[in-house]
Amino acid sequence: MTGKFIVIEGLEGAGKTTAINTVARILNQYHICDLQFTREPGGTPIAEALRNLIKNGLDDEPLTDKAELLMLYAARIQLIDNVIKPALNAGKWVIGDRHDLSTQAYQGGGRQLDKVFIATLKEQVLGNFKPDLTLYLDIEPQIGLMRARERGELDRIEQQSLLFFERIRQRYLELANQDETIFTIDASKSISQVTMQIEQILTTWLTQQVTNV
Amino acid sequence: MTGKFIVIEGLEGAGKTTAINTVARILNQYHICDLQFTREPGGTPIAEALRNLIKNGLDDEPLTDKAELLMLYAARIQLIDNVIKPALNAGKWVIGDRHDLSTQAYQGGGRQLDKVFIATLKEQVLGNFKPDLTLYLDIEPQIGLMRARERGELDRIEQQSLLFFERIRQRYLELANQDETIFTIDASKSISQVTMQIEQILTTWLTQQVTNV
Repeated sequence: MTGKFIVIEGLEGAGKTTAINTVARILNQYHICDLQFTREPGGTPIAEALRNLIKNGLDDEPLTDKAELLMLYAARIQLIDNVIKPALNAGKWVIGDRHDLSTQAYQGGGRQLDKVFIATLKEQVLGNFKPDLTLYLDIEPQIGLMRARERGELDRIEQQSLLFFERIRQRYLELANQDETIFTIDASKSISQVTMQIEQILTTWLTQQVTNV
Repeated sequence: MTGKFIVIEGLEGAGKTTAINTVARILNQYHICDLQFTREPGGTPIAEALRNLIKNGLDDEPLTDKAELLMLYAARIQLIDNVIKPALNAGKWVIGDRHDLSTQAYQGGGRQLDKVFIATLKEQVLGNFKPDLTLYLDIEPQIGLMRARERGELDRIEQQSLLFFERIRQRYLELANQDETIFTIDASKSISQVTMQIEQILTTWLTQQVTNV
């Protein structure tokens, strides 16, 4: 039996790392222990090299929005073909720190790149591959960025204006409403309350998966 | 007055470097001395980093055809936005060692990636930017590869089968026939004969440019 691909999404400071740990703990309780963790962009040698170029640039050269978008999809297909699909086929469950929804939200919503072009890239590069379940941690940018700042320095993308992050959040919410495999979680709540929301959604979903088999 | 963008194209071993030198020498004779040389993929710090990943890979990770294609366009838009367009706007003439036609021929013809997808990428990423003149050095793959082998080790792309290079040549010829800004040069001839062909085409073209102004 192939594994499932669960993705955690959300703005900086939404609590993705805690959520990933919560998901892993719950899966372990269901005796799903063979887990593969991924992060995007990244997760393979080539994809990590691309992540580094995207996050930190090189020699002060401006990175164009289009090059950023193309490099994100290049990194994604490397990760899917070389890590995610082989893991799923080997029966592992994969827990992803971000996936395609981030590109839809950040590049489509935040950078306002042409949505038809992004849709074409998604279709041509990913085909019909998509996560089985996505947990979107919804948070107001002000709160998320405050939390992220407390963790240390902000990278190239995190240094954008608040309006940029508000557009990202709107796009996340729009897309979450259109896709029944994406669940929105109120991440402004306390850690214990967010954990409870994740537990509820994930256990209900896991039960349905077992029923469907 | 903005400069012009002249591109040299062709298979490995077709004689691109000699042709570039010939073009530069002729331009100098016409008192066009402020030249910018580019190579693709590459030509900016980020584009050279992408070139290195494409040519040499990383840690034996297989590079997917789609990631290669996306990285080529990422490198190209970095070069266009950060080097070629600023140079042209400053009145420089740009001489390119390969440009988009290589992607059409190698990834479209050689790797047989979806031509509609490549056309969409070209349109969305490059818009209507294109070279003013392209000189395509046509050569049979057997002859070109023999010459390239004499120069030393072959890279990841150059290690493909002869059939791969025959498909590339066919696509080059097809596209050259459809575009009046692309001139096909018989590169199987001796260096002096190839140089004469380039001189003839370029001087005729330069005369037309002056007339058109």
